[in-house]
Amino acid sequence: MSYLIDPGLAGDIYLRHKKLQQALIAVGADALLLSSNVSLYYVSGQVYRGWFYLPAEGKPLCFVKRPVGLKGSGVYYISNPKEIPGLLKDLGEPNPGRLLIEGEISYAEWMRWASLFEGSRLETATSLLRSVRAVKTPWEQDQLKESARLHTLGYERIPDLYRPGMSDVDLSVEIEYRLRKMGNLGLFRIFGSSMEIHFGVVLAGDNADAPSPYDFALGGKGMHPSIPVGQSGVPIAPGQSVMVDVCGNFTGYMSDMSRLFSVGTLPKEALRAYEVALDINRTLAELGKPGVSGTFLYQKSLEMAQKAGLSSCFMGHRQQARFVGHGVGIEVNELPVLADRSDAPLEEGMSIAIEPKFVFPGVGAIGIEDTYIVRDWGMERITLCSQEIKSLTR
Amino acid sequence: MSYLIDPGLAGDIYLRHKKLQQALIAVGADALLLSSNVSLYYVSGQVYRGWFYLPAEGKPLCFVKRPVGLKGSGVYYISNPKEIPGLLKDLGEPNPGRLLIEGEISYAEWMRWASLFEGSRLETATSLLRSVRAVKTPWEQDQLKESARLHTLGYERIPDLYRPGMSDVDLSVEIEYRLRKMGNLGLFRIFGSSMEIHFGVVLAGDNADAPSPYDFALGGKGMHPSIPVGQSGVPIAPGQSVMVDVCGNFTGYMSDMSRLFSVGTLPKEALRAYEVALDINRTLAELGKPGVSGTFLYQKSLEMAQKAGLSSCFMGHRQQARFVGHGVGIEVNELPVLADRSDAPLEEGMSIAIEPKFVFPGVGAIGIEDTYIVRDWGMERITLCSQEIKSLTR
Repeated sequence: MSYLIDPGLAGDIYLRHKKLQQALIAVGADALLLSSNVSLYYVSGQVYRGWFYLPAEGKPLCFVKRPVGLKGSGVYYISNPKEIPGLLKDLGEPNPGRLLIEGEISYAEWMRWASLFEGSRLETATSLLRSVRAVKTPWEQDQLKESARLHTLGYERIPDLYRPGMSDVDLSVEIEYRLRKMGNLGLFRIFGSSMEIHFGVVLAGDNADAPSPYDFALGGKGMHPSIPVGQSGVPIAPGQSVMVDVCGNFTGYMSDMSRLFSVGTLPKEALRAYEVALDINRTLAELGKPGVSGTFLYQKSLEMAQKAGLSSCFMGHRQQARFVGHGVGIEVNELPVLADRSDAPLEEGMSIAIEPKFVFPGVGAIGIEDTYIVRDWGMERITLCSQEIKSLTR
Repeated sequence: MSYLIDPGLAGDIYLRHKKLQQALIAVGADALLLSSNVSLYYVSGQVYRGWFYLPAEGKPLCFVKRPVGLKGSGVYYISNPKEIPGLLKDLGEPNPGRLLIEGEISYAEWMRWASLFEGSRLETATSLLRSVRAVKTPWEQDQLKESARLHTLGYERIPDLYRPGMSDVDLSVEIEYRLRKMGNLGLFRIFGSSMEIHFGVVLAGDNADAPSPYDFALGGKGMHPSIPVGQSGVPIAPGQSVMVDVCGNFTGYMSDMSRLFSVGTLPKEALRAYEVALDINRTLAELGKPGVSGTFLYQKSLEMAQKAGLSSCFMGHRQQARFVGHGVGIEVNELPVLADRSDAPLEEGMSIAIEPKFVFPGVGAIGIEDTYIVRDWGMERITLCSQEIKSLTR
């Protein structure tokens, strides 16, 4: 037997439940019912197969199907979600007038809940959940920092992993191996169903300009048409850039970091663009205080890219992404997004990756990405790897 | 510019479209509209961001949002799915009376299609898609065989990767590295949203008995509560088993294979159970001809486990899985399932992983898994790795 909610983590989990309950009350909803792995991990500190029910006031209830052997206050084993409404009644819970459920569940699952909670009005919890999860609790910030610390240690060793003649795939496999040996969990959790990736991307030379179907900042042809993103087997060549942007998941919370490498020196215009990217990164981190909007920061990045005469290759060249940063946490694409129509003000405790990147035909990706936590004075950088372009042949 | 459908693959893709159209006609539906990465890969041979529309009779239409630069007959770029009904009309397509869409899309997406196709009856395509995809085309069978060939080559080298003092995590990282160097794509595509895994599992000793929330054959505590499955950092110890069940995705199609390793010899009762597992594996492969049901094969496996006095540890011990095999292809959990209520008859060309496994407290997982393709004479094994228990200390 073990606890569903680790007693050592109970205080922080309680804080998350309180945040969710305050948000429920603010929108006038009566209860929240969650079932996705990401949500269950957020509200309990572990993934289980089951359902989590949180009334706007009162205690949460955990309905568990698997694994066997979990205990704790409010934990009930069930074999079918059909049992939930009856159990809630037995436990003295009033029927929720407005019940929020995750908007990403399938139509069939939604319709099942609609029939099980016949007297309730079902609404999507997506926006509430994403807003609450965007602001990290103290324990969550620690997890992000620990991921970032190990992520940084791993990145610092990248030049040691290079051997002349390597392709982008070769180098990516060595980086992955190094990070996995350090305890990287490998899993990339992504909000929504259309994006997928394995471990991350290493973009060398013109492959950075290959457009991808996915909504990542940059593309890459990928190793195979079944997963068209990232490294594609091209040789790493002198005078071209190598951008490493791979998974920082060591704790269930992911730091996001891109660093630039090269064999020999890069052309002058690429080095100049790199200075612009660094400048955008630093400027956004200074401006990114509580109260500032994601849109403001995005517009600022566009403005700086334009002033440098680099608009046509900012965030891609053949295909351009329309954001310059995004929240990170249990998922790699959380709120806030630094993009147009991101009017919500930043809040203290948000964790945000800022990734100004250019793509130069003939050279490759030029840019940087760091993860920050929003403080009252600006943004605290937590991916502390050196920001210099590192030579792979030292 | 490149083709959305690779001309070299067009014949096989055409076959898949024909199979889908026959199935549409058989259920009396007028058209199929697909959007998931898995479905788009199936119907076009590459993942793109967009929508695929297949009328029950006539030519398919591909509506592409990203990447830029794809061409081909029936390919149209759009920026918003709202444009699709109008485009269909312009192209002379009749309004579909009954339109099938994927049942796994979110409630919100379903409702969007419902409003865009107001005069149509929307129904879930899930069962039709899974049935059609269960029977592999010749090209798909080749992809599975190529994955299985490389998977096998990789597994044969596993004893070389072992060093005394290794934990299950250490060994799994070495296996992953070896397979990635061989071109393994790493990505595990899984039907449904509740299962997730990174690269696969290496189960040593009693960790095999740690129950998992996921619906895999066996569990394991995992490296972290955020992804509770598989290796957990326990030392690999003499007299205990090490079961390797990791990703065989080299082609977008996944072979599935488990093999058993040990340091020194395993206890007699474990060796006897392994013979029973081999016997179940062989017997099911002999019986598994077109016309036979998944339920029949599952019942046979239960019967054989019971006859051997091993029912209480078959497919798990503290927590038991209720299947002994499953289809594999683009996803690792395709149809057919060898389980109760799997009445549909096997068909030639189906690819099925059979995985009879026992869990012995104090010893670990004991069993085997191979991937087969159903032929008229029985099942052709395609994961051709030796079926012996291999010593890690040779």
